[in-house]
This record gives sequence, C-alpha cells and structure tokens, in this order.
Amino acid sequence: MQMQLLKERILKDGLVEDGDILKVDSFLNHQIDIRLLEEIGKEFRHQFEGKEITKILTIEASGIAIACIAARHFNVPVVFAKKSKTLNISGEVYKTSVESFTHKSTNTIIVSKKFLLPEDKILIIDDFLANGKAVIGLSRLVEEAGATLVGAGVVIEKGFQPGGERIRSMGIDLHSLAIIDSMNPENGVIFRKE
Amino acid sequence: MQMQLLKERILKDGLVEDGDILKVDSFLNHQIDIRLLEEIGKEFRHQFEGKEITKILTIEASGIAIACIAARHFNVPVVFAKKSKTLNISGEVYKTSVESFTHKSTNTIIVSKKFLLPEDKILIIDDFLANGKAVIGLSRLVEEAGATLVGAGVVIEKGFQPGGERIRSMGIDLHSLAIIDSMNPENGVIFRKE
Repeated sequence: MQMQLLKERILKDGLVEDGDILKVDSFLNHQIDIRLLEEIGKEFRHQFEGKEITKILTIEASGIAIACIAARHFNVPVVFAKKSKTLNISGEVYKTSVESFTHKSTNTIIVSKKFLLPEDKILIIDDFLANGKAVIGLSRLVEEAGATLVGAGVVIEKGFQPGGERIRSMGIDLHSLAIIDSMNPENGVIFRKE
Repeated sequence: MQMQLLKERILKDGLVEDGDILKVDSFLNHQIDIRLLEEIGKEFRHQFEGKEITKILTIEASGIAIACIAARHFNVPVVFAKKSKTLNISGEVYKTSVESFTHKSTNTIIVSKKFLLPEDKILIIDDFLANGKAVIGLSRLVEEAGATLVGAGVVIEKGFQPGGERIRSMGIDLHSLAIIDSMNPENGVIFRKE
C-alpha cells in the first residue's frame, strides 16, 4: 500500500526532469527531512508487520539514511553494501556488479562475509527502484550468504520501468511506498491507482 | 567529554591494524549498531546543549548514518555532501576538494546551494577525524554559503594525528566522543586521559 504523506510530499517538492529523472533531493537524498523519514520507517515496520527480521541491508549512499531510521522501528542493525570501482577488494567479501540507472555506470558492490550470516533474515531497503538492479544485486548477496530474504522495501518505485515487475516475478515480497505510473516535466507525477 | 559506552565498544569490537587503521566496521561504518548510534546521537545533543542548530551537515557515506540518527535529537534536517571524482557538476553547487586518509584519494565534495543558506546554523557531524580534511572541507562549504558554523561533532578522533589540533586552533568548537592517543596491533587502543 502506498503512503499518502509521501505521495503528497513528492507532488509538492519533487521535480520531474527530462530523461525520467525525479529529483527529490530537497527531502530524500541530498537534504534529508528526518521527520518524513521517521514516518517512512514506521510505515515499513507496519507493512512488514509480523515478519521476523534480523538485519536491514541497503546500499550506499542514499539508502543509508532510510535504512537507519527504519532500523530503529525493527530494532535490528543495518548493513550497507559498499560501492567499489575496483575488483581488487581485500578480505572476505560477497560481491556482485550493479548498474546504476541514475549514474549510468557499473559498480561492484561488496559486503563483508562477517555481516551476512546463514541465520540472518534480511529486509532490503532502498530509496529508488527503477530497473531493479540494486535490489536484485543485494538479493544475490543475501542468497550467496545462504541467508533468508524476507522482502524489500523501497520508498519510490518508477512503475513505468521494469524493476518492480522483475522483482515481484522473482517471488520477492516488494513493498513500495509510492509507485509512479508516469511522469514528465509538463504534467508532473501520476501515481498508480490502488 | 568522551563517551564511556563508546570507548568500551571500541575496546571490545574495534580492530587495530597496521598503518594506523582502526576497523570499527562491525558497529559503526559497515554494519551499524543502531542502538549505539541512538546513544551517540543523544550524547551529541547533550554536548551541544543550548546551541541553536538549524541543520546537520555530513559527508557520504559513513557520516550519513550518524548524522541522521543524531538529527532526530536536534529535530533538524541533514544535508550530506556528495563525493565526486569529476569537476563537471551540473547545477549550482558549493564545492571543494578533500583528501581521504582511509582511501588515499582526493575527492571533490559538493553541496547544492539550495541547501546551505546564509541564515543556517550548522553542526558538522562525521565518524572519524584523522587529518581533519573532511571537517575542514565541510567548514569551507559552510563559510562559502555565508552560514554560521556552530561546531563539529566526531565519533572517533585519532588524537595522535593533527586534525583535532588543527580544527581547534581554527576556533571551531569540536567535540569528539572518543579520542585515541595511541594504538597499535599489539597493545590496542589507548584513550586520552581527561
């Protein structure tokens, strides 16, 4: 279920730019409205009510803020995957490569093996879902660790891009707090009807 | 004043490696213990008691977690400076270059002009202080914006490196929650006596 307060904030302060870019840098991923994040964290807790979760997994940089505030409501630690341009990583890590829609680049993402254990029940959290590469990359790390993936929570899903469908068809329990079905600089943002 | 709970945690879970590296990735900057961060946030609020602060400024990636949890106690937004390898940044930004001790590299850090205003009273928050380059770089952005720098809070200061002295001698009100006077793989960590 989508989150009314978030949708209103996107309509008020989000900027749609050419090239399917939605700028939410005044409240979500450059300047961060902590009060809004607090409500987002509560909403994730609500949407994954009753699920046992031992750790929240996210990816640097803008996922960290959301994951940390949400983690307070789950009372679990956060692990964030690090992005690295180099494959030459020392130590024992799980790694995979992820393309970024926003940055048009490919990163290797890594998580230390110490922090993803077979007994972990993982909730993935991220800010945006477009092609789904970040969530799918993170889910590969969870699988490699032999941990259980409980689900994924994203703040904004671009419903007109294939990530959401891909992830749902993989059987991952995906909750998006706002799903945008179309957007352009002239007409702004249209959310999915529920 | 240093924070007892944090010092105990560093002694318990910090790993000292050659080259003046202290690994605290099990609780501070890869896996994040949110309950510890909650206490760190409260302690920063306590140490800057009575100071008017309108925004917390930090730098990606590992500063974000600490800044966001602390921001709840100050009831202000967070702005995080982005690291960029390129000088070719679009839009109106404040920028400066910062050397990283950990990564032995130089990054341009940028903040959108929209999010640092002349009327802002800024608290800088970061995880580590070694040579002080990150805090000093952030303070240049604050100055460029014509905003007021209220102070800087760091979680762990490497007191045997010059950053702390440099920053204090600039007249910046610096609070470090743990100050390490020496460390090595054989004897571990020795904190500064107060």
